[in-house]
Amino acid sequence: MNEPLYDFRSDNVGGAAPEILEAIIAANAGTAAPYGDDEHTRRMNERFAALFERDVQVFPLSSGTGSNSVALAALANPYGAVYCHQSAHINVYECGAPEFFTGAKLVALPGDAFKLDPVTLDDALALAGRGNPTRVQPFALNITQPTDFGTLYSPTEVTALCDVAHRHGLRVHMDGARFANAVAALGCSPADLTWRCGVDVLSLGATKNGAINAEAVVVFDPALAREIPFRMKRGGQVLSKARFVSAQLERYVADDHWLERARLANSHAASLARQLVGLPGVALVAPVEVNMLFLRMPDAAVAALDRGPFRYYKLGRDARFVCRHDQEAAGMDALVRCIREAILP
Amino acid sequence: MNEPLYDFRSDNVGGAAPEILEAIIAANAGTAAPYGDDEHTRRMNERFAALFERDVQVFPLSSGTGSNSVALAALANPYGAVYCHQSAHINVYECGAPEFFTGAKLVALPGDAFKLDPVTLDDALALAGRGNPTRVQPFALNITQPTDFGTLYSPTEVTALCDVAHRHGLRVHMDGARFANAVAALGCSPADLTWRCGVDVLSLGATKNGAINAEAVVVFDPALAREIPFRMKRGGQVLSKARFVSAQLERYVADDHWLERARLANSHAASLARQLVGLPGVALVAPVEVNMLFLRMPDAAVAALDRGPFRYYKLGRDARFVCRHDQEAAGMDALVRCIREAILP
Amino acid sequence: MNEPLYDFRSDNVGGAAPEILEAIIAANAGTAAPYGDDEHTRRMNERFAALFERDVQVFPLSSGTGSNSVALAALANPYGAVYCHQSAHINVYECGAPEFFTGAKLVALPGDAFKLDPVTLDDALALAGRGNPTRVQPFALNITQPTDFGTLYSPTEVTALCDVAHRHGLRVHMDGARFANAVAALGCSPADLTWRCGVDVLSLGATKNGAINAEAVVVFDPALAREIPFRMKRGGQVLSKARFVSAQLERYVADDHWLERARLANSHAASLARQLVGLPGVALVAPVEVNMLFLRMPDAAVAALDRGPFRYYKLGRDARFVCRHDQEAAGMDALVRCIREAILP
Amino acid sequence: MNEPLYDFRSDNVGGAAPEILEAIIAANAGTAAPYGDDEHTRRMNERFAALFERDVQVFPLSSGTGSNSVALAALANPYGAVYCHQSAHINVYECGAPEFFTGAKLVALPGDAFKLDPVTLDDALALAGRGNPTRVQPFALNITQPTDFGTLYSPTEVTALCDVAHRHGLRVHMDGARFANAVAALGCSPADLTWRCGVDVLSLGATKNGAINAEAVVVFDPALAREIPFRMKRGGQVLSKARFVSAQLERYVADDHWLERARLANSHAASLARQLVGLPGVALVAPVEVNMLFLRMPDAAVAALDRGPFRYYKLGRDARFVCRHDQEAAGMDALVRCIREAILP
Repeated sequence: MNEPLYDFRSDNVGGAAPEILEAIIAANAGTAAPYGDDEHTRRMNERFAALFERDVQVFPLSSGTGSNSVALAALANPYGAVYCHQSAHINVYECGAPEFFTGAKLVALPGDAFKLDPVTLDDALALAGRGNPTRVQPFALNITQPTDFGTLYSPTEVTALCDVAHRHGLRVHMDGARFANAVAALGCSPADLTWRCGVDVLSLGATKNGAINAEAVVVFDPALAREIPFRMKRGGQVLSKARFVSAQLERYVADDHWLERARLANSHAASLARQLVGLPGVALVAPVEVNMLFLRMPDAAVAALDRGPFRYYKLGRDARFVCRHDQEAAGMDALVRCIREAILP
Repeated sequence: MNEPLYDFRSDNVGGAAPEILEAIIAANAGTAAPYGDDEHTRRMNERFAALFERDVQVFPLSSGTGSNSVALAALANPYGAVYCHQSAHINVYECGAPEFFTGAKLVALPGDAFKLDPVTLDDALALAGRGNPTRVQPFALNITQPTDFGTLYSPTEVTALCDVAHRHGLRVHMDGARFANAVAALGCSPADLTWRCGVDVLSLGATKNGAINAEAVVVFDPALAREIPFRMKRGGQVLSKARFVSAQLERYVADDHWLERARLANSHAASLARQLVGLPGVALVAPVEVNMLFLRMPDAAVAALDRGPFRYYKLGRDARFVCRHDQEAAGMDALVRCIREAILP
Repeated sequence: MNEPLYDFRSDNVGGAAPEILEAIIAANAGTAAPYGDDEHTRRMNERFAALFERDVQVFPLSSGTGSNSVALAALANPYGAVYCHQSAHINVYECGAPEFFTGAKLVALPGDAFKLDPVTLDDALALAGRGNPTRVQPFALNITQPTDFGTLYSPTEVTALCDVAHRHGLRVHMDGARFANAVAALGCSPADLTWRCGVDVLSLGATKNGAINAEAVVVFDPALAREIPFRMKRGGQVLSKARFVSAQLERYVADDHWLERARLANSHAASLARQLVGLPGVALVAPVEVNMLFLRMPDAAVAALDRGPFRYYKLGRDARFVCRHDQEAAGMDALVRCIREAILP
Repeated sequence: MNEPLYDFRSDNVGGAAPEILEAIIAANAGTAAPYGDDEHTRRMNERFAALFERDVQVFPLSSGTGSNSVALAALANPYGAVYCHQSAHINVYECGAPEFFTGAKLVALPGDAFKLDPVTLDDALALAGRGNPTRVQPFALNITQPTDFGTLYSPTEVTALCDVAHRHGLRVHMDGARFANAVAALGCSPADLTWRCGVDVLSLGATKNGAINAEAVVVFDPALAREIPFRMKRGGQVLSKARFVSAQLERYVADDHWLERARLANSHAASLARQLVGLPGVALVAPVEVNMLFLRMPDAAVAALDRGPFRYYKLGRDARFVCRHDQEAAGMDALVRCIREAILP
């Protein structure tokens, strides 16, 4: 393909950061025990402990859906309920995997800006029928950070949700498929965004930010970690050569490159938003807080985009653009120009 | 660690073949659609079609357990039974994953040399209670090729088992975690060992023979393939950046290196067997047909090994040694010498 | 207990109709094959065929939750979705049983009067992502008739919903735990309310209308019936002495007593509504179309009721009163009087 | 059908004892809360406490398969293993229900006289791979008492098995579908056969001994009881009008009739055995210890039986005869005569 193609479909259409590839190549030397019982996995655990400023137990795997599902299975019993926002990734885009791994039901709540609201959560839990055997029993809360529409919870907001959840006896899972973008945008430490707010388990994704199928279940409560190896194996989530994922994760958090990449990707989306918002008929579906832009546009703009060298996803009438750290400037310019010219000819 | 360590624990303790690493690096260029909707996955499908001399549908994933479980879920209903040998990997070493993904029960049969026997299978199926709602209903047969004890089914034997299975209305799954070692040892074509014998779905593993967490579900019947993407997603088996697995698999079967590696690994095990069998008190637990050696040894030999720079697994009183293509000659010599000297001081 | 107690908690607090008890006693003679392979079950099938004016396959069981779950499991695959109203019994009061038996996800839709609306359903199905492996795939529609809030779908409304469902490739399940009340209120035939509208499987409950733990899965499409015995057994829903349930069901539909009882129960609720609506501060939560009355009342009325010899359920701020055919006139009078006097002292 | 039919298929082909029917009729008066929150269920609990000489928690349900499955689900986690004899009812005749409810795998052990053996169990548990995530983890032991072949464990034998199980960290479930026949035959108290031996949960069946679809989960450890209502509801095992089962169970153990019936049924089988064993070509498949007789007979005897007015089950080449307390003397005589005359013409 000789003509350029500007790809805004997702941040997982990109490749690996150079240092991540190097880490894979370095991990190729020698032999290592399979299934995560290796030096790379041990070193990854140490790095994550440093990053999170406390002991953590970290499990490497290849799939974000697997990571969320395993984490939730450690929190929720089969007759249980997992509370989440109705737009949560686990509720919409995982083909029922969280229900499969947990046996629990997802209870989907509404909430502005695609975010859970502590009052709505509190009310729902008050009516959940705790102790009534005809009702699924609340076990866990899922917070998707950032949300699937690119909005963010502040640490204060996460804390408020965790407080409600804990008061009702629930544990909290954070789906951090784009954790880097959240940390970069909020400018706080990983600890300040997770366990210090009350998060019990984090699914931290590296794949969308420069790694190759590398995800981590990060457990802040050792009691919750005990069952995870079994639940992972039963779910086909244990990797034979786990060291190649652990090596990526170890390298991923070894310096600040992961945050720099995320910051760059975030700024690209902000830049697009700045240039497009204000055009007649163009509206944001959600505030642009990380690297995702959701637009409602005039039909003419959509038609023009579809004739051009662009890739992006449509959600009903809306368009989703996701920026990568290595998004081409030419592509961003072309996108803005294409929409502009369709609207202001 | 400066002193050498000779690692016979498993073939998955090794790294990746050079051309596999190159394929990963090459796949890093440009962007690609996620979840297997990419050029590498399409090219992998073509390569596998050529290899198997027919149309096939190939699904890339990262876990052998996931591959077996997804394949079986396409064959067996929740009230069903999957017949297998009692030593089958799916029955012993996958923590119940096949049952989890299928909802079916594994019915484990005895059989000499760790292999299923058509008469035993036929008898069991005749007594299975087809149509009786109190009994799980036979849906699938699992053939582990080679077996977990390194023994092989000839194409004639596979055909005989498939014939019994099909006569009773079952579909056949082959667990080919070490498919390369089987093809190399039997000297027949991949087609001759699978669909020409009657195999409906193959789990082909590349991880143990020079790839990095790269496995394939190979479906010979298009009707069986339709549900697989959904079952994979629900099981957390779909990879975000699937292209990096597809690129490995595409490269893996692009030439004969995969078979050369397997042949070499097989020959290493044969060489160890030749040198050790005949020593007083040393007996093979199973014939050595691929790259695995199961020995019963005098206690003195075990004790000597445990003092040395060796890694291997124990199964009850027996010892398992698995050879890799790049097994060090020094390590094999040291192993033989250590056992010999313990027995013949 | 000497003082009278007026029980409006549910229609399942009542006993069995005399002829149902007689049927149980009659079925006690002689021996009969277990698990539904008996004469009573065969005769029940014939009776239901006559009632529904066509061949049907009927499975006796003891639990309404079991009946719904088994029926849905015959319709929906594990990666599937079952669409229902958000107030549906299967969604709220079965502790996740439908999800457990099917492996599918319930997709809960809003709708006025606690009823599904064809346009909302059509829109939801259009956005369901048919063929997209990240999304659960639509397999079945559940219609609760009457709804858990005592509202009714007319045959025209059921037909409209079934048409939308079938156009999108879904099968339709009707939860008829109070099927008698619906048929009695609508004045149409059982056939006109089910398969003639497009319903594929019906869960017909007799327990709430004069039987003892007697429920039926009524299948209108023979292809759907084939798996049901196995799904029932695997779910612990097959009764050892099934004849005692079949004998009840056979008797239940042998004459019009079931409809007379339902008609009477319905009229009791209507009578209560007539006498209470119009009182200051008393409002119906839902129209009273069968034997259920949902009221919002002034606090004084609630307090007065709670001091009296009444039993009823509260749902948040609302009160639910369910009438039985044998509801005591004295109890209904006392209930009306109590509320009236609390409001108009 | 005018000619007599002698039915030896199972003890569940019979009807209800008179006092059980009376209990059902008596329970029909008044109203009662649904789902087991009623007076009959409370009184049943008290009666069982008296019977077992300690506090117990008893859950009424309608299905023996449901009872076993719910009990095991309280003991075993999804990645767990339930150890049982390979002939155990839960392993052969429940269509995978125990696996469905638990998510665990059944590990089936051999053993003489269709009974588990403590040494075999101990050896199996020693090799189970406790802590190894590739292996299902031992959680529970199932003892079928009497076995499906009518053999009995003495209290000493039950104790020995429980001791092994507890030493390895397993809880013990007893499947007592024919508990009455075991207690009657062994002449010990219910307590002496269960919790005093170390049994943690008992599935006590009344259906096969004069009740109508009435089974009980009897829990000796209150901590295990907490989850059971939820697991029952999710499994469709909660009865809307539970009082009709509780009333039966309450009456069932209110006096010694249950044991007298069981004793009688046992003696019938013993009598048949006495008269038939010793005939040329007639051999017992298992010792006759309760009300079941398993025979291997000459073909001529089988053919003669099949021409006569008899009902019984065949298991491969063997014949199973189960006696009820109300087995007709004429039927037993006719059976013996028929076999005798076929063999000694």
